[in-house]
Amino acid sequence: MAETISKNDFFVGVDLGGTKILAGVFTPALKCIGKSKLTTKAERGPEAVLDRIARTVTDAIDECDLSVKNCKGVGIGAPGAVDFEAGRVIFAPNLGWKDFPVQKELEKRLDLPVFLENDANIAALGVQERELGGKPRHLIGIFVGTGIGGGIILDGKLHSGAGHTAGEIGHMILEMDGPKCGCGNKGCFEALASRTAIFNRIQAAVKDGQKTILTDMLDDKLENLRSGDLRKAIRRGDKLVEQVVQDAAQYIGIAVSNLANLFNPDVIVLGGGVIAALEEEMFGIITEVAHDYMMPGVDTGLDIVTTKLGDDAGITGGAVLVRQQLK
Amino acid sequence: MAETISKNDFFVGVDLGGTKILAGVFTPALKCIGKSKLTTKAERGPEAVLDRIARTVTDAIDECDLSVKNCKGVGIGAPGAVDFEAGRVIFAPNLGWKDFPVQKELEKRLDLPVFLENDANIAALGVQERELGGKPRHLIGIFVGTGIGGGIILDGKLHSGAGHTAGEIGHMILEMDGPKCGCGNKGCFEALASRTAIFNRIQAAVKDGQKTILTDMLDDKLENLRSGDLRKAIRRGDKLVEQVVQDAAQYIGIAVSNLANLFNPDVIVLGGGVIAALEEEMFGIITEVAHDYMMPGVDTGLDIVTTKLGDDAGITGGAVLVRQQLK
Repeated sequence: MAETISKNDFFVGVDLGGTKILAGVFTPALKCIGKSKLTTKAERGPEAVLDRIARTVTDAIDECDLSVKNCKGVGIGAPGAVDFEAGRVIFAPNLGWKDFPVQKELEKRLDLPVFLENDANIAALGVQERELGGKPRHLIGIFVGTGIGGGIILDGKLHSGAGHTAGEIGHMILEMDGPKCGCGNKGCFEALASRTAIFNRIQAAVKDGQKTILTDMLDDKLENLRSGDLRKAIRRGDKLVEQVVQDAAQYIGIAVSNLANLFNPDVIVLGGGVIAALEEEMFGIITEVAHDYMMPGVDTGLDIVTTKLGDDAGITGGAVLVRQQLK
Repeated sequence: MAETISKNDFFVGVDLGGTKILAGVFTPALKCIGKSKLTTKAERGPEAVLDRIARTVTDAIDECDLSVKNCKGVGIGAPGAVDFEAGRVIFAPNLGWKDFPVQKELEKRLDLPVFLENDANIAALGVQERELGGKPRHLIGIFVGTGIGGGIILDGKLHSGAGHTAGEIGHMILEMDGPKCGCGNKGCFEALASRTAIFNRIQAAVKDGQKTILTDMLDDKLENLRSGDLRKAIRRGDKLVEQVVQDAAQYIGIAVSNLANLFNPDVIVLGGGVIAALEEEMFGIITEVAHDYMMPGVDTGLDIVTTKLGDDAGITGGAVLVRQQLK
């Protein structure tokens, strides 16, 4: 059945990343009707980035033949610790920001209500509402890409913690004295299963004299390696890549089990670039390992699913946030 | 200032364990005025255990020169998955129970309102209210004894999860392919840092020819090893025991950091027999390692504390539960 939409009922979702800004315009039923993308250019400083966010938003709205007046508000996910109530980014290492009033600055530029949340939290919210109909009461989102982020919904609400930094799933230690992580620690989940971790292991193996067709597909340094390249290599019979990806899937399975044992959620959602590209190769291993390690009772009624929203999880969650707040 | 107590305002807390039942009578300000203890005798079946719980409760009340009529209700913590609303133990492996209506059965025997929760959850509640004045909004309790249990309070409420099994902190994997755990998995926190884990490592070292004065203090098999023996051995200069206890403290530090990074709580409380006996030897290492591994922002405002309630954390939490429910 087609959705009947009043012309002033649209929501805008924004996903602010370290390298790009994505904005999308959504109907009240969360259908995306237009998008726009710009590079972030974080090096120009927060004021310049805010101008670019505003431009991405107005571009997306214009793309839909609408104007700002047709929209009810903007929901934005930022990579870092976010104080939702104050509308401030507390710190965002990827952007180099510390205590910046994003909500106020963006409202000034757009003349629309703005709501700010952490990017992984907002992506979890997008999946929960758009794909799962808002049903799961307790949901954990695991987003595996360059890094690994986590979104936590408990009792139907985002859990941000005492200092708005909850959900650092990527820095859960799974293997004491394991490989070094970008954060300085060793054995973090992110250092074992992110695209960066997979890339580092393959590169080390190549230096060690092992063979992979990735060096033919790309170059010896494996520059610009993407998750899709890993999938292609495996499908062409590359045993090294297959092994490394399978090992990463095992660690993701362990992480799923740890989170299930701690939070006992209804749903654990897997997303991000690595999962999107390698679902067929990884998902079976992830669920098998996860169920192996879960305590009795924890897996009863637990759904482990992948999101089909891909890169749109964040902007979808942004629209959900506006819809929730303006109810 | 002395507490003015009406003679019918007392609460009873019960800690139901695999080997013993402890009951305590509390004033409205949570002062314990009398206790009683019985062995559990789980092998006699749930009906017999319920009779023994009722007896422990009436013994404790009698000890205080009170009668059941002077009490408002009973709060009980059970070791396993508990459905608080239904008042049922869903399963409790240490007792061999599956789906047993503890609340109904105990109310029948005592003619008092009964409230049932998980034992580690209730212990966390006891610490939060009795020692911390109910202030922390987000609190995680880690109880290290024969096993390792966890209690989770988020937004001031116990988090039990979708199937009432949340908080399985002891079965978080910290070292893939680490030592075998009683649950069948490898590398669980419990298999690395519980009294059982410490005991297993010392016993293996002794078999391997290493020396410890524990074999003089006890016997070659180290039967009946208690946490207090470990403390005595370290204070007499036992290097093996010192090393094993320090290693366990490191793992506890890692677990604290993992939980802080995931939940971003206000307080993490450490309790249980191992912590009570070895606080001086372990606490410094635990906090140092935990802070080393925490993400920026997570440790801001986080208090890591030990509980002084010892074995009384559970019964205190039981009294808190009744007080909360009958408000």
